[in-house]
Amino acid sequence: MTAKTWRVTGLHHVAIAHGKDPVCENALTSFIGPADHTEEAPGFIERMYELGPSYVQTLEADGEGVVQRFLDNRGPGLHHVALEVDVIDAALVDLRERGVPLIDDEAREGGMGTRIAFLHPSAFGGVLVELVERTPAQAEPPSGEGEG
Amino acid sequence: MTAKTWRVTGLHHVAIAHGKDPVCENALTSFIGPADHTEEAPGFIERMYELGPSYVQTLEADGEGVVQRFLDNRGPGLHHVALEVDVIDAALVDLRERGVPLIDDEAREGGMGTRIAFLHPSAFGGVLVELVERTPAQAEPPSGEGEG
Repeated sequence: MTAKTWRVTGLHHVAIAHGKDPVCENALTSFIGPADHTEEAPGFIERMYELGPSYVQTLEADGEGVVQRFLDNRGPGLHHVALEVDVIDAALVDLRERGVPLIDDEAREGGMGTRIAFLHPSAFGGVLVELVERTPAQAEPPSGEGEG
Repeated sequence: MTAKTWRVTGLHHVAIAHGKDPVCENALTSFIGPADHTEEAPGFIERMYELGPSYVQTLEADGEGVVQRFLDNRGPGLHHVALEVDVIDAALVDLRERGVPLIDDEAREGGMGTRIAFLHPSAFGGVLVELVERTPAQAEPPSGEGEG
């Protein structure tokens, strides 16, 4: 084994998938505060609830797509976990060389200006894992929490 | 509404349930490093992989119990998410008063000297959420990561 040229630096987020039921968003708002970021994606709305250097992410299906298919198969619940890495391109080169099954062979644009890639669930024995590299402007954990 | 006397202070861990298949533990060890804590519980082994102030937790079923029942129903995968709170007793008083459905009405002892309580999954629309209060000695995020 050669030395790894990348490393996991944190737990970036854990994602919850749901449909029209507002219970999950209302509970998160009550427990944590309102979502800090909201983005539209094809077939779903993505919201991020900031918790120090990590987030709880929600994926609300609002059309056909990967989130609705997950809901059809499994119902609402935890969808994936995202590990923060320092250099995602180096991680993907290394994982490809080691034969780790990937959904995304190359990094693509994620929410909030991140670069992301999903591993195939078989890589973690049935758990969908995402890798996230923050943009340089985001690389430091937020200091102000926005709640008075 | 009266002012809340407690707050969520972080994302303590996300938990993965699995059976005898070693793929998940091997992948976590490869990505993060070996588990930092291992504890035996009735029917399962709990391991904690430290990532800054948060953890990835694994629950390996090794007998009958809640983890094996989860695996029988849903297969291996994400099991719950744990939010860190500053004062768990105040949180539980508040949640009981607001009628939030709880599994644990009172805090009980968790791994690594924590105090924990599970909410009923209906509180978050189908997601099992745990509250965790660190012991005073643990209350500061770890500074050394253990990896050279």
